[in-house]
Amino acid sequence: MTLEKTLIVGTGLIGTSAALALREKGVAVYLSDVDAHAVRTARALGAGQEWTGQSVDLALIAVPPPIVGQQLADLQKREAARAYTDVTSVKVGPIADAERLGCDLTSYVPGHPLAGRERSGPAAARADLFLGRPWALCPHPETGADAVRLARELVSMCGAEAVTVSAGEHDAAVALVSHAPHVAASAVAACLKDGDDVALGLAGQGLRDVTRIAAGDPRLWRTILSRNALPVAGVLERIAADLAAAASALRSGDLDDVTDLLRRGVDGHGRIPDKHGGPAREYTVIQVVLQDRPGELARLFNAAGLADVNIEDVRLEHSAGLPVGVVEVSVRPEDTGRLAKALRFHGWHVPPVPGGNSGVDQA
Amino acid sequence: MTLEKTLIVGTGLIGTSAALALREKGVAVYLSDVDAHAVRTARALGAGQEWTGQSVDLALIAVPPPIVGQQLADLQKREAARAYTDVTSVKVGPIADAERLGCDLTSYVPGHPLAGRERSGPAAARADLFLGRPWALCPHPETGADAVRLARELVSMCGAEAVTVSAGEHDAAVALVSHAPHVAASAVAACLKDGDDVALGLAGQGLRDVTRIAAGDPRLWRTILSRNALPVAGVLERIAADLAAAASALRSGDLDDVTDLLRRGVDGHGRIPDKHGGPAREYTVIQVVLQDRPGELARLFNAAGLADVNIEDVRLEHSAGLPVGVVEVSVRPEDTGRLAKALRFHGWHVPPVPGGNSGVDQA
Repeated sequence: MTLEKTLIVGTGLIGTSAALALREKGVAVYLSDVDAHAVRTARALGAGQEWTGQSVDLALIAVPPPIVGQQLADLQKREAARAYTDVTSVKVGPIADAERLGCDLTSYVPGHPLAGRERSGPAAARADLFLGRPWALCPHPETGADAVRLARELVSMCGAEAVTVSAGEHDAAVALVSHAPHVAASAVAACLKDGDDVALGLAGQGLRDVTRIAAGDPRLWRTILSRNALPVAGVLERIAADLAAAASALRSGDLDDVTDLLRRGVDGHGRIPDKHGGPAREYTVIQVVLQDRPGELARLFNAAGLADVNIEDVRLEHSAGLPVGVVEVSVRPEDTGRLAKALRFHGWHVPPVPGGNSGVDQA
Repeated sequence: MTLEKTLIVGTGLIGTSAALALREKGVAVYLSDVDAHAVRTARALGAGQEWTGQSVDLALIAVPPPIVGQQLADLQKREAARAYTDVTSVKVGPIADAERLGCDLTSYVPGHPLAGRERSGPAAARADLFLGRPWALCPHPETGADAVRLARELVSMCGAEAVTVSAGEHDAAVALVSHAPHVAASAVAACLKDGDDVALGLAGQGLRDVTRIAAGDPRLWRTILSRNALPVAGVLERIAADLAAAASALRSGDLDDVTDLLRRGVDGHGRIPDKHGGPAREYTVIQVVLQDRPGELARLFNAAGLADVNIEDVRLEHSAGLPVGVVEVSVRPEDTGRLAKALRFHGWHVPPVPGGNSGVDQA
């Protein structure tokens, strides 16, 4: 059995983006949402046609976490699809709801695409929203192989990478790599609320990076955190304990605990995979001074392209008060010489660049 | 009196970079370092000539924090300069040392350039290291106006922006915007040390940003933190308390404290100035899918340059497992339409982009 007909329940950002991706693959897509306006918008974007009860291969339930279980029960009662999956960012809760409501777990494949945007709603949808992102699938012991196959086919059609993991492991994982770090970033940023302007004037790129995600919508995050409360609490307690221990070590003057924490931080940071899925690799960082005017980045990346050098990462070092900045481009160490030569040829000032490093700004 | 002759004591990254900047401005630069090899390297880079006791206008003391006071005392005994400044990242300690050692505080202008690199030593020096960066000056009540004038002249010749602040305010400020955030990032990253590979496979750009600075050299940071222990401890205690409170709120199920923390985080994040020194402004983020091959960024930034659109910020969304990524370019809201049109004209897929937003990834 292959994926020919799908039903998208909930035409928000995630549901409509999946619909657009499936349409591009020629899959028939039916759309359903309690908000008729949302369905109209999704249809206008070419995401599919309105659902009028057609039976499909797979139903993608893209509704808020608290109502996933009820939605699944209703759809199964109508025999809307041969298999069902959802997209909520926590998984233990919806599965428990489904069991409590007597749903048929053999056709339910709990899922979670790790993709999102700063905005929501069908108007923000993009067919490429999931491209290259992990998409967790958390089959229940009762889940049937055909249902899993259909869900994997949907994930692959969306250009995402299926990651099979148990619901408990999933929730613990996102608590560790997403939910708790968000709260930690909020706590660092919260300290800035009452900082004086002089202090904030000394802020550098490091602070901007640490606090960037703290700008996220508090209501959305309250919902996410409430559904994954215990795993997140566990991680936050470890972070809080480490920080409290570091603080008392600093007060006592015995910094061994602090050094140990810094060392564990280096090790932990090194475990984050790079974009090609391997362990984080060391790139050489080349810093170039930019005038803050149109075309500067174009000139620089042109030079890199002409030198056949692939830019692995790029970062603008914002500078307070002056209309200039430094762009840091990360490249494979073996490409460093070629790029530096090319940039100099095109008139950029490029300082001597020794071997690979992690590009950490210690300002 | 103007800055014509300078002495750089300590020809590491900071000292040699300042020397290179001063040389470009035609200032006579003398170099001194306990490590003869470091002086040779700096001279080879064109940073100046070896110091043989010449008297100068200003001596820049770029040695490790613990020996700044002694260095100042020695130089003053030799009447090496009319004024003295240093570059250590904490300021109360060196001033106390200088007072204890009976230094002449009228000619001493404690300073701290907020600039750095992932590497150290004269070979990593760049004349533009300080370009556009804040450079704190912390004159003591006894410090003379001429000495401050000379120090400000040096800062301006380095292309940096002088920020006058008291030593105590400075140390509290860097604890808030740099030192404590570094420890917090280490604590988040430390939790990843024992995370399983599946969990880390779900990591996104948010986690990479929060933990990036945690890759910094633990020994360097131990020294920095030990010199600013109490201010850093104070901030860490606030962060630890907020995180512990959030954890217990999550366990109790009453999430009001969590929501409050998230809201304070949004407010605090909004206080970080943008690169032009004003309050953080909202840019519109345009996301474009990139093939991971040379020249893609060049094509994109070319299109932006041709459209006369200035890229305010750029970020590569790394994607695990697939050779594609999404580049997020931030532009002024009024430039959005022009850029989107230009990118589409050049063949990029650009989704509909409504008004300004902060580009926060809520995945």
